[in-house]
Amino acid sequence: MNYDEFFRAELQSLADEGNYRHFAELERRQGDFPRARHHRPDGTKEVTVWCSNDYLGMGQHPAVLSAMHEAIDRCGAGAGGTRNISGTTHDHVMLEQELADLHHKPAALLFTSGYVSNWAAITTLASRLPGCVVLSDAGNHASMIEGIRHSRAEKIIFKHNDPQDLERCLAQIDPKRPKIVAFESVYSMDGDIAPIAKICDVAEKYGAMTYLDEVHAVGLYGLRGGGIAEREGLMDRITLIEGTLGKAFGVVGGYIAASTELCDFVRSFASGFIFTTALPPACAAAARASIQHLKQSNSERERHQNRVAAVRRQLDIMGVPHLKNDSHIVPVMVGNPVKCKMISDRLLQDYGIYVQPINYPTVPKGTERLRITPSPVHSDEDIRYLMESLGAIWSECALARGVAAA
Amino acid sequence: MNYDEFFRAELQSLADEGNYRHFAELERRQGDFPRARHHRPDGTKEVTVWCSNDYLGMGQHPAVLSAMHEAIDRCGAGAGGTRNISGTTHDHVMLEQELADLHHKPAALLFTSGYVSNWAAITTLASRLPGCVVLSDAGNHASMIEGIRHSRAEKIIFKHNDPQDLERCLAQIDPKRPKIVAFESVYSMDGDIAPIAKICDVAEKYGAMTYLDEVHAVGLYGLRGGGIAEREGLMDRITLIEGTLGKAFGVVGGYIAASTELCDFVRSFASGFIFTTALPPACAAAARASIQHLKQSNSERERHQNRVAAVRRQLDIMGVPHLKNDSHIVPVMVGNPVKCKMISDRLLQDYGIYVQPINYPTVPKGTERLRITPSPVHSDEDIRYLMESLGAIWSECALARGVAAA
Repeated sequence: MNYDEFFRAELQSLADEGNYRHFAELERRQGDFPRARHHRPDGTKEVTVWCSNDYLGMGQHPAVLSAMHEAIDRCGAGAGGTRNISGTTHDHVMLEQELADLHHKPAALLFTSGYVSNWAAITTLASRLPGCVVLSDAGNHASMIEGIRHSRAEKIIFKHNDPQDLERCLAQIDPKRPKIVAFESVYSMDGDIAPIAKICDVAEKYGAMTYLDEVHAVGLYGLRGGGIAEREGLMDRITLIEGTLGKAFGVVGGYIAASTELCDFVRSFASGFIFTTALPPACAAAARASIQHLKQSNSERERHQNRVAAVRRQLDIMGVPHLKNDSHIVPVMVGNPVKCKMISDRLLQDYGIYVQPINYPTVPKGTERLRITPSPVHSDEDIRYLMESLGAIWSECALARGVAAA
Repeated sequence: MNYDEFFRAELQSLADEGNYRHFAELERRQGDFPRARHHRPDGTKEVTVWCSNDYLGMGQHPAVLSAMHEAIDRCGAGAGGTRNISGTTHDHVMLEQELADLHHKPAALLFTSGYVSNWAAITTLASRLPGCVVLSDAGNHASMIEGIRHSRAEKIIFKHNDPQDLERCLAQIDPKRPKIVAFESVYSMDGDIAPIAKICDVAEKYGAMTYLDEVHAVGLYGLRGGGIAEREGLMDRITLIEGTLGKAFGVVGGYIAASTELCDFVRSFASGFIFTTALPPACAAAARASIQHLKQSNSERERHQNRVAAVRRQLDIMGVPHLKNDSHIVPVMVGNPVKCKMISDRLLQDYGIYVQPINYPTVPKGTERLRITPSPVHSDEDIRYLMESLGAIWSECALARGVAAA
């Protein structure tokens, strides 16, 4: 078989559907977020980034950067080994303590990414709890889906954010079998929020563990940035909270926070935790500084919500259709991959605004969108200019206007 | 079911077997490798690290650290998004070009870790090539094994480093089916080296792709640090070379280097690549500086080999049994998890020498060992003191002496 020919044909199919991905080559400018340099074949151009998951701009916070610099000067670049073989540093241990405290859990465990934390933790729990069944929200992230798949445990998908359907599913399972209810607090692409309390009610009634992905909520919600579960006073009812250090905290890495036994179990048996080089100590130190700052400062969260509301208000005035939700994610719905990319290209080339088109497989086909993520570093003028640019494109291309989608 | 009780019981079984892992909490001292602070409940103590995978000490190289500092000052801490959604930075693109050049391949693709690069690349290739069979060396790393498992493709294990057995396996497969021969150049725990040319001969004869993990070889072998395949003039015969930035290059991250089509295919379809936050630009910049340095400097590699030979010579003189191999890894064989941990504890507590015991599941039960990794930063005096300490423990504990194991 000619392998490259096969790959070429598959890539061509992707392109024919309008789903071939072009990565924009950026260089964010520290001290000047949301501004970045866009590197193109014909040179570089200044752009404003409107789709970053560095939701609060913590990636340029002085406390974060100075912790990172300090740790490099103190202990060098990489960790030099897996966590077991010389790669557990003081910075990793301190970060895990900080994370446990953030979620009021006895322990936490750090992974190289949020993807790996979900994949490794779910795989390990679901494959090693004898006869385990995973009840998985229909909207769950790829990392959880792959973790469940990899575990080969029985999986039952319940309707998205639907505790009644979850109960219907749970009621059918042998009460003696271990069960994991896996769901997210803020769903990243629609921005809707789970009914956590009701899901806990049902899970507790049937003796199921709750596994909550707070990746798009930690740092952003709750008085200390503990996420939606903190905001709603529910952290103690969740068995395991999973989060990331690469979005609101502005660095990189993932984690779980749970009981000492659960964390120690995953630490001891998860292939994706054991057999990989630990994060650089400098990344751990930077993430810890970010968490510490957001534990005692609410101003970033307040301004964040203020910016989100301002963007929504302006979109409503202009009649640009966007999904209503209670989070910080503003999905402007386009519904066609080619059109979505066209709008994004126009914004980038003609207006210096960068909003990546979100196509399949990140969202279902037919729900292609521009996912706008306002942040505290976007000014009134940035918002005004974004609206002016979107308005111009909407008019020129005769795109549909209307009330915001439900 | 009481989940925590189940976890506790499983952890107790691990402890009863002597396989419960205690992580040493370290703080390496930049500018002073291999020295580190060991954090303990009763305070900190200076130790010498003898088991790091920062094989060349590049984690404290001035060029690496200054590139990392510079990138933080230029563009902040984290990447702020997945590679597709605002997370591809100029530093990532430059690093991928550097990696392609290192292996004389048209393209390269960066992942958050070596584990993820293996898992994601193999899963994607083996699950999407229709009817694919993976021929996997019996000694392959967990990340490849999990990738193959996750792909659900047919897997055939061939005898470790045995091209004849590989041929026997390949001859039985329908010639029309796509085939991947997956193996490593340097096996991390025994330190033995694959007969790459012979494996290529067989793979080519049967039309199989070759997938070579050079994680424990990149930076260390070959005139420019391209690995064993470079040293033996075989890079152009390998379909895909996988490597890490977290060991000899001293930072963090993993990659594949291959044809443009193959890299683009994995980029476009691998869940573990698509749905995860990109590495911090500063890590990419630091890794690139490290690769660039090791492309034109051989002195680290020469001193590395000199240190390895010196340690082996001294072990032979003392009759401390170690596995002979042609690489830089010096496994001192103990063969019992409890004894292995006891020696390691004595070294750490009484002599200030840190060599982590390597137990199951990293190595098969009964082959427990101390895996010593000499590096250019270890002095003659460090070697002398290590030998004196090992000698004292061997005598006190009446451990077996003898010629080096085969």
